[in-house]
Amino acid sequence: MTSTAIKFSFTQLATELERVRTNTPLVHVLTNEVVQCFTANTLLAVGASPAMVVAQEEVADFAALADAVLINIGTLYPERLAAMQAAIASANAAGTPWVLDPVAVGALRYRTEAAKAMLASRPAAIRGNGSEIIALAGGLGGGKGVDSTASSASAVDAALALARSTGAIVAVTGAIDYITDGETVYSVELGHPLMTKVVGTGCALSAVVAAFLADAPDRLQAVAAACALMALAGERAVECSDGPGTFVAPFLDALHIIHPNQLRQVAA
Amino acid sequence: MTSTAIKFSFTQLATELERVRTNTPLVHVLTNEVVQCFTANTLLAVGASPAMVVAQEEVADFAALADAVLINIGTLYPERLAAMQAAIASANAAGTPWVLDPVAVGALRYRTEAAKAMLASRPAAIRGNGSEIIALAGGLGGGKGVDSTASSASAVDAALALARSTGAIVAVTGAIDYITDGETVYSVELGHPLMTKVVGTGCALSAVVAAFLADAPDRLQAVAAACALMALAGERAVECSDGPGTFVAPFLDALHIIHPNQLRQVAA
Amino acid sequence: MTSTAIKFSFTQLATELERVRTNTPLVHVLTNEVVQCFTANTLLAVGASPAMVVAQEEVADFAALADAVLINIGTLYPERLAAMQAAIASANAAGTPWVLDPVAVGALRYRTEAAKAMLASRPAAIRGNGSEIIALAGGLGGGKGVDSTASSASAVDAALALARSTGAIVAVTGAIDYITDGETVYSVELGHPLMTKVVGTGCALSAVVAAFLADAPDRLQAVAAACALMALAGERAVECSDGPGTFVAPFLDALHIIHPNQLRQVAA
Repeated sequence: MTSTAIKFSFTQLATELERVRTNTPLVHVLTNEVVQCFTANTLLAVGASPAMVVAQEEVADFAALADAVLINIGTLYPERLAAMQAAIASANAAGTPWVLDPVAVGALRYRTEAAKAMLASRPAAIRGNGSEIIALAGGLGGGKGVDSTASSASAVDAALALARSTGAIVAVTGAIDYITDGETVYSVELGHPLMTKVVGTGCALSAVVAAFLADAPDRLQAVAAACALMALAGERAVECSDGPGTFVAPFLDALHIIHPNQLRQVAA
Repeated sequence: MTSTAIKFSFTQLATELERVRTNTPLVHVLTNEVVQCFTANTLLAVGASPAMVVAQEEVADFAALADAVLINIGTLYPERLAAMQAAIASANAAGTPWVLDPVAVGALRYRTEAAKAMLASRPAAIRGNGSEIIALAGGLGGGKGVDSTASSASAVDAALALARSTGAIVAVTGAIDYITDGETVYSVELGHPLMTKVVGTGCALSAVVAAFLADAPDRLQAVAAACALMALAGERAVECSDGPGTFVAPFLDALHIIHPNQLRQVAA
Repeated sequence: MTSTAIKFSFTQLATELERVRTNTPLVHVLTNEVVQCFTANTLLAVGASPAMVVAQEEVADFAALADAVLINIGTLYPERLAAMQAAIASANAAGTPWVLDPVAVGALRYRTEAAKAMLASRPAAIRGNGSEIIALAGGLGGGKGVDSTASSASAVDAALALARSTGAIVAVTGAIDYITDGETVYSVELGHPLMTKVVGTGCALSAVVAAFLADAPDRLQAVAAACALMALAGERAVECSDGPGTFVAPFLDALHIIHPNQLRQVAA
């Protein structure tokens, strides 16, 4: 790791969460077939307003209305890819931030080429696991299907390089999350391994990153706050869980219940 | 509001629920990508039999076999729209009632035109939020993505006009639900705001409306009963919930457990 | 029934589960739109690694990487069917076992013909309800949408015939599950009727069958173990449930928590 990571604080999270709760950003979600329901429930719990508009006939209009756009390539085929490209173009024309979640990039050529081509359209942020960030930065990411075979710590250099080459905030998540703009690196040491046994926690995080980026005065802090909120809610949910099944309900509750003032008290 | 609403009674709900539980109607569901699983679980909990058949190669055959059809346009693109039109034509040919859920109509032109064109095919019922019903009736509905910016009460006149012009039972749902055939207006004052933080409660309600319309002797009462059952189950679930995450499981349990005799006792 | 069924033992299940937990097989899932999230969570809870890759541009590459493939035809249309055929061809070329779940075969002609054509590509296993197995074996299966109108016991002869004609292990599931290679028949007398009120328990079972077939030394025992594990977890979940809503979370927990040594103690 070429940079020393700064621990992201609960005070910073409180500021960002307060902003999102006040603005209830409309998030245009183009994501994979598996996690749409969980992603929408996550955004609602956080305080955002999700909408999953995917038709080529509608995406450009809707991306222009939305406050942020998520592009998750977990389910990718030509029609959906064309819709994603139209949404990205419309978001960029409107000055709306969009987030790239490069699911399983490195493991499959079609999506790897598609994701790399999207980098030229300047995502505001990229969120992936170690294998995905290494592959997107041009290395051999590996990965086992959608799961990472590289730790987040081993991908920090790739994240820094990717942030510098694209201008995006890059979040590489795992046991520890690292969030960087290519210079500063924040770390989030929260969360729990049980979260890797629940489908969609990473994908939903990327949607929350989009929600926090909407009208964000400080994009690095916004992305780090999204990571910290999800990891903190995960820690709290594990305390009420007996396994991956009973994790989901208290996780969404925690996202809904965590209050900025409570975070400031914990920080004090 | 040009009509005085009549409060829908638990005795009426008991009669309708008993009928659905006895018949276990087969409901052909064409709905959006986000809520399919929750919708299917809702129909099973109520006592219906759901099937999500969407291929153009199969929809006409299946709509003719089904006892009711739901058309929810939340995910709309040309292939899915063509499948929906084929299902509607087949349902009409078989005398099978079909329900229209005009998700986000008013906010996006493609789906607004598609939904308005469907009205000529005479849905048995239309279920939407205030913004959607106002937009479908020809007004400026507004709406923020899939969420309503108009109260249900402000949409009752639009619901009456829409019922009269289409011949459908129209349900406009929100803090209070209003159900009308263009003359009589029933109201359902149940439910809880937490339900708006859970994805798919409205979409699933539209599927339950379809289940109740199957072989219904009184369509107005059938649609009102569907609204009342879902809102009542929601109230009960909130009592066992700490937030939107822990809401879903007891909500489905309540739908499964609520018994006509229990409703008659509450009413007595 | 032309064969006497042998009760599958917890000792056998322990052996199979230990193998799956050690290998964490990568399961390539092509399934219907309704159950993808629940299926993925089920595979993670069991100890496998799911990936839902569906694009024609990617399925052949991914099926060759995977340890097993599931083909569930619940949502079938030409593009998805072509992707399934490509995945099957790639799995066969790589010597990777693939599982067929013939959802609603018998009720609809398009999928019935598609499923029957797939039999020539020699699935390692077929998992269906009574109506589906009878229809696939060439009889009149009936079925009400996706639900069976035939008991599993009434379909054992069809299962034996289907196993003999295709070379697949055939599992016909219901109140009792029967699993056969065309000679031996195992029975699993576990589970609970409440599982029929929860969407996707059958579809998820088929995915678990695929996980257990990965590198299995004894395919008959592997398929029976998958059925036994799911039914046992269902029984345990029902003890913690008030209805179909509260069933899902403890079901996934039970799949995650059940340990081979615990099974050996129960068996002793």
